Amino acid sequence: MSKSKGFRAERELVARLWKLGFAVMRAPASGSKIKKAKYPDVVAIKSGKVLVLEVKCRSKVESIYIKEDQINKLREFANRSGGYAFIAIRIPKGVWKLVSIDSIEKVSNNTYRLSRELIINSKELSEVLKELKLITTLEEFIAKHDSGSIS
Amino acid sequence: MSKSKGFRAERELVARLWKLGFAVMRAPASGSKIKKAKYPDVVAIKSGKVLVLEVKCRSKVESIYIKEDQINKLREFANRSGGYAFIAIRIPKGVWKLVSIDSIEKVSNNTYRLSRELIINSKELSEVLKELKLITTLEEFIAKHDSGSIS
Repeated sequence: MSKSKGFRAERELVARLWKLGFAVMRAPASGSKIKKAKYPDVVAIKSGKVLVLEVKCRSKVESIYIKEDQINKLREFANRSGGYAFIAIRIPKGVWKLVSIDSIEKVSNNTYRLSRELIINSKELSEVLKELKLITTLEEFIAKHDSGSIS
Repeated sequence: MSKSKGFRAERELVARLWKLGFAVMRAPASGSKIKKAKYPDVVAIKSGKVLVLEVKCRSKVESIYIKEDQINKLREFANRSGGYAFIAIRIPKGVWKLVSIDSIEKVSNNTYRLSRELIINSKELSEVLKELKLITTLEEFIAKHDSGSIS
């Protein structure tokens, strides 16, 4: 993805999670080598529950390939924090799909693949938050209202 | 404090917490306006427990003044995450003192002060981590060994 598109998507996700009551941190030096090596794109915390997120943005739904290093980094961060690690993918119409790193298949020695089918069948952000008891009905409503009003 | 000194102190704290098993995030764009307005310097998470930290570095122990905005930002981040907010101060001999934001006195409309006495009487990092059950004896030993080997 282009740097600026990825950056905008990341910022949109941060704003949305902040509105839902999360404390949200973005990685330092977005796009730099240091960040890629050490930090997830976004970490969101609410009442001790932690979401560890790698952000992708796609203008059409297709397979995404991710280096094993990246997955390992997310897994370690989730293990240390006691949190849940996801690839957060912004697909058309402002929909955010969350794919748990545990459901991703390894396709070669150092590469993982999120297939088109896996992405389509993955839960949306609001569903994941509901399952993890991270949003209430009111907050869910606000989230839907917000995403509906983006033009 | 000078920017580079502050930066080094921050990095030292991040490395130390990482060694102790924390997932650690640093604020983006250290020193920039965005960061100051929105993010704490360091967020460290272990098994769902969250430390929200503003980092200071002093070559001699003296009063520190902090803007109310900064304190409010730390408080909000701690409330959202369910964490604990501290000012983490590196004083001579590599000692880190942690002052809870709840113990800081407001001295004017928009300023808080950490007096010299408050800093001296505050707990050290390892004591705070022990109290919050965030380190075990072995990890504590490793931490002490590490800080002892800094030359």
